[in-house]
Amino acid sequence: MDLHGAFHVYDTTLRDGAQQEGLNLSVADKLSIARLIDGLGVGYIEGGWPGAVPKDTEFFRRAQTELDLRHARLAAFGSTRRAGTKAADDPQVAALRDSGAGTVTLVAKSHDRHVELALRTTLEENLAMVRDTVAHLVAEGRQVFLDAEHFFDGHRRNRAYALEVVRTAAEAGADVVALCDTNGGMLPPWVGEVVADVVATTGARVGIHAHNDTGCAVANSLAAVEAGATHVQGCLNGYGERTGNADLVTTVANLQLKLGREVLPDGLLREATRIAHAVADVTNFPPASRQPYTGTSAFTHKAGLHASAIKVDPDLYQHMDPVGVGNDMRLLVSDMAGRASIELKGRELGYDLSDGTPATKDLVGRLTDRVKQMEQRGYTFEAADASFELLLVEEAEGRPVYFDVESWRVITETLARREAAEEAVSEATVKLRAAGVRYVVTGEGNGPVNALDHALREAITQAFPEVAKFELIDYKVRILDQGHGTDAVTRVLIETTDGASSWVTVGVGHNVIEASWEALVDGLTYGLRRHHTG
Amino acid sequence: MDLHGAFHVYDTTLRDGAQQEGLNLSVADKLSIARLIDGLGVGYIEGGWPGAVPKDTEFFRRAQTELDLRHARLAAFGSTRRAGTKAADDPQVAALRDSGAGTVTLVAKSHDRHVELALRTTLEENLAMVRDTVAHLVAEGRQVFLDAEHFFDGHRRNRAYALEVVRTAAEAGADVVALCDTNGGMLPPWVGEVVADVVATTGARVGIHAHNDTGCAVANSLAAVEAGATHVQGCLNGYGERTGNADLVTTVANLQLKLGREVLPDGLLREATRIAHAVADVTNFPPASRQPYTGTSAFTHKAGLHASAIKVDPDLYQHMDPVGVGNDMRLLVSDMAGRASIELKGRELGYDLSDGTPATKDLVGRLTDRVKQMEQRGYTFEAADASFELLLVEEAEGRPVYFDVESWRVITETLARREAAEEAVSEATVKLRAAGVRYVVTGEGNGPVNALDHALREAITQAFPEVAKFELIDYKVRILDQGHGTDAVTRVLIETTDGASSWVTVGVGHNVIEASWEALVDGLTYGLRRHHTG
Repeated sequence: MDLHGAFHVYDTTLRDGAQQEGLNLSVADKLSIARLIDGLGVGYIEGGWPGAVPKDTEFFRRAQTELDLRHARLAAFGSTRRAGTKAADDPQVAALRDSGAGTVTLVAKSHDRHVELALRTTLEENLAMVRDTVAHLVAEGRQVFLDAEHFFDGHRRNRAYALEVVRTAAEAGADVVALCDTNGGMLPPWVGEVVADVVATTGARVGIHAHNDTGCAVANSLAAVEAGATHVQGCLNGYGERTGNADLVTTVANLQLKLGREVLPDGLLREATRIAHAVADVTNFPPASRQPYTGTSAFTHKAGLHASAIKVDPDLYQHMDPVGVGNDMRLLVSDMAGRASIELKGRELGYDLSDGTPATKDLVGRLTDRVKQMEQRGYTFEAADASFELLLVEEAEGRPVYFDVESWRVITETLARREAAEEAVSEATVKLRAAGVRYVVTGEGNGPVNALDHALREAITQAFPEVAKFELIDYKVRILDQGHGTDAVTRVLIETTDGASSWVTVGVGHNVIEASWEALVDGLTYGLRRHHTG
Repeated sequence: MDLHGAFHVYDTTLRDGAQQEGLNLSVADKLSIARLIDGLGVGYIEGGWPGAVPKDTEFFRRAQTELDLRHARLAAFGSTRRAGTKAADDPQVAALRDSGAGTVTLVAKSHDRHVELALRTTLEENLAMVRDTVAHLVAEGRQVFLDAEHFFDGHRRNRAYALEVVRTAAEAGADVVALCDTNGGMLPPWVGEVVADVVATTGARVGIHAHNDTGCAVANSLAAVEAGATHVQGCLNGYGERTGNADLVTTVANLQLKLGREVLPDGLLREATRIAHAVADVTNFPPASRQPYTGTSAFTHKAGLHASAIKVDPDLYQHMDPVGVGNDMRLLVSDMAGRASIELKGRELGYDLSDGTPATKDLVGRLTDRVKQMEQRGYTFEAADASFELLLVEEAEGRPVYFDVESWRVITETLARREAAEEAVSEATVKLRAAGVRYVVTGEGNGPVNALDHALREAITQAFPEVAKFELIDYKVRILDQGHGTDAVTRVLIETTDGASSWVTVGVGHNVIEASWEALVDGLTYGLRRHHTG
């Protein structure tokens, strides 16, 4: 399958998605997201705007050595040259050329009034800017796409000029002109008409870039494809400015599962739910439970009216098999669903919980009850496999105890005035027994959890030297019960590594420090158990 | 305008919306929501299923005395009579008749396999059930609508039978047959074709009930209307089972503002944002910020690129005037921000930063540089208007100082062993000077920030009694640089209220406690300044 051929799936999560209010991605975040999206099998990943956004310049620099994409090509986004200059001399164009990306997506104006008001130049000069910049980059060996901004409004206002921009770009060598509904105000029939007009009039290869301001971003994208667009843009989880961009997974799933167009490599759509949720973990935006295809509620049925018929024929009650997008059917308030998922989870971790013996049945029952109670209080075991495995071991054979904590304390203070910009320091003291010896250890850190981690590991390392290899590599906090201020329930996820592999543990509590402590202790206990039994 | 005439807007928030995972409405909640939705001017509000759901029976009972709807009529939802009985003798039909609702919406099967599998009766008996139940309720003076369940799938599988159900209902006296995409798997062109076929073949008045499983609920509803449907169903905030129902406001706003159909009484669409958010307050689901038309981000602009042109002509950058749905344009100060965004933000907050004097230009320059530097370090001023205003004031006239912190310290400890399940306690000591007096105050809390907040506010209240009214109502933590474990940079957003209004401040640091402290201090300083200058 040629992902860069007759049909393109083009992801703009890292550029247009990052415009979403409240979303703030570090370079490391962007690299992680690019790796995840590559796993979906899209053809292009737009990485950002090198030369204009310093973080994006760094992203492209690091991508050259740190990203090894299996499917996608990276695209650099930028604008056509400034008015009255030459593309070859424009420093912003140079930044695109030097980004290392083989594909450059140029944004250009196609709405006459935007040319006059925002660019403050003439309609002719705007065409020259498009022609010159596209031709220059093509001559430099780049594949060039053009994002025609505000195209649909522009086409309505001055059709001839909008079409001229498309024609100019195509003639200068742009592979695709993506028509952008920048304001997001279009409806599907309008998009279909304009796309058909552009294709028929200019003969250019056309793409679609839709926003969701009328709630129709996905339908607008499909209407464009039906009218002849062969390049479709979108963002994971529908991220984007205002109401967001077209959700990439929903658009692609509709194309593939509803309209029968194979646009992703075989089988990769089954990774969609995992990838969508993993991207949400990186952005730290909780995934929308109602999100089509990938939402946790997307295939969830309330028990009742339908329950018995669902058992007979689930296809009567769902529009597709959720496995196709890596999601699951869930029945709410169903004990069976709980036990079944516990058994499944156990199997994943190498425990046979479905052997049918009374002892195992009893164990699964206790474990199901315990997980339900804990989830009620805010725990989640979806990500925290290690905490779940400890629970399972605890119910089966008792909790493994490698150390016995007597008490802990952490002090954070600043002695100087704030104006002196002195940093606060944290200091933790942990008292515990391990291998028959009592340890009292104090550790410092740049935050309370960092200090606790240092003190705890230093104490345990004296009894179990292998702990010296352990390192805490990720720490996530989520406030579960917002609206209660600092009194809210906090969930902490901690990822620990021993250099060879890593595991995630969870802690929950009103006190963020105590929740973190719980996850830290679980993380060390799990690592020690693996070392001692494995 | 006849809301019950040629075109119906039909709300099903209280019935189908209430199927949403995690949504649980009391009778009082349902009465409140009905009043709110009536304020939007819809023609019908479906209240629930009397006779089947005890809470809904009570809702209809109390509605007769407690609800005084200005626009909407209440509809009772229920199913056709059981197989092999008479409608007049069916207790469930009696409950509909006795509910006090002038309109009854009957759900019926129109998909042959659902008749056989879920109803376990013959196709002929299903038609008799429709005919008998509709005719009985019409004879009893009720207006009857029919919800034809799984209609689109049924039409694809057995078109003749699906059409026969519509014809039977219409001939028996149903005013409208609403075609339901119960699984939500349809796309707009398919909906349009089927609706056109039903209208042409049966001559019945047709409605649309769409779910969002393909992300096309709104577009599907519009396609149905364009094909001849004159009754459109939806839910506030897109609530509903799985991925939700068609969002009522988005659908209606598109019909009215995009397609020029006046479907609500004059001026009431301007209440949409207020009502959507008020309904969210009742359901206690935080409103989705990206929701079309009514979301807090729906008319929010981030990119610095556009800011200068937005000043000249906002209509170039938004698909409609947000006032039309009672929303507002907002500008975010982001790392793409330039001077233009800073000026606009200043104007929003009541400062004229574009008077062109050298002093103001200089101020804007310093402020822009400062914001950029701070955003580089992880600050965000998008949500934290109060911190931004403090920065502005600081650059313009120096930071207002109401208290002078000497030092602070917070201790979190657990003295008992973890196994004893003792909760950790936090204790904070703050030393500061305010109004010439030195205060040393210790506060306790269920977490370190909670304890610091208590100590700080108690100290300051002695000098400024108005601080006693201040309350911390929201606290958000985000780890910005994940992958560095507890060494990561942390951003804290705090929302403080004085009872009348609220404001958001931000703090950033490696140490989560220090970041929280910064946001706490800004929150109190902002509140004091507002009190002293306002």
